[in-house]
Amino acid sequence: MRLKFLWPGRTKSPELRALQDLFVARIEALAACRVVETREARGVDERLAGKIKEIEAQGLERHLEGAYVICLGDQGKEMTSQEFARFLRGRERETGRPPAFVVGGFLGLAERIVDKADLVLSLSRLTFSHELCRVVLLEQVYRALTINRGRQYAK
Amino acid sequence: MRLKFLWPGRTKSPELRALQDLFVARIEALAACRVVETREARGVDERLAGKIKEIEAQGLERHLEGAYVICLGDQGKEMTSQEFARFLRGRERETGRPPAFVVGGFLGLAERIVDKADLVLSLSRLTFSHELCRVVLLEQVYRALTINRGRQYAK
Repeated sequence: MRLKFLWPGRTKSPELRALQDLFVARIEALAACRVVETREARGVDERLAGKIKEIEAQGLERHLEGAYVICLGDQGKEMTSQEFARFLRGRERETGRPPAFVVGGFLGLAERIVDKADLVLSLSRLTFSHELCRVVLLEQVYRALTINRGRQYAK
Repeated sequence: MRLKFLWPGRTKSPELRALQDLFVARIEALAACRVVETREARGVDERLAGKIKEIEAQGLERHLEGAYVICLGDQGKEMTSQEFARFLRGRERETGRPPAFVVGGFLGLAERIVDKADLVLSLSRLTFSHELCRVVLLEQVYRALTINRGRQYAK
């Protein structure tokens, strides 16, 4: 399976970055995996949320072509880890498109990116910081891969 | 507000431990906060799940007296971050008992600990590793404290 993870900019928290790297390495042992840090809107006044999201949307969308797009969002579908593993299994084979997970920046995703999504996924009813979202997502993808191989790595 | 966090043993992942320390430090700036690493069942065959959970229950329960006990569990109540902040606000004042959050070890909590809970809280429908649970919980408690002070720290 080929997996892609997209988000604007580098993860800034060194602690979350360390976890991100850890889970990416674990995923890479089980699947072809690529993290793409797309263009981040820098130096734009935070009040111009629309402009920031638009700049970031342009960076993201060039990587979405041909992919099965899964955007993370508060209003998305919640799943158990078992359901998520089932969902992920064979996604590329069934749709002919490798999954691309998209996580927004600190202001979230532009609507037109969410509109392109084949699935909007919610990790929790709770709001996580966008950088924590990246880590929780990677942990769940790794968990799904281990579930699909018939072993569960940790409770 | 006084807050207590209980779990068996030290967080082993250095990356998650770093995040744990980070969020504890942030919480400490806003509330009295204590993490108690209770007795962990070591050297017991993993197949003896009941025995492990019983040993860990003994370590946990001595810290529960007089507390408003919130156990983390898959079957628990899900909340949004706003709901959780509202829930936490004034919990000690209204109940006369400071909140104690309890997270199980890798096999989870003994039933008799869950039975003592005033609330069972679920962070997500997804299953997180018990060490990631600790970090997500701390992040949400910190977020709740910032929400209750009228500022939100990160999306």
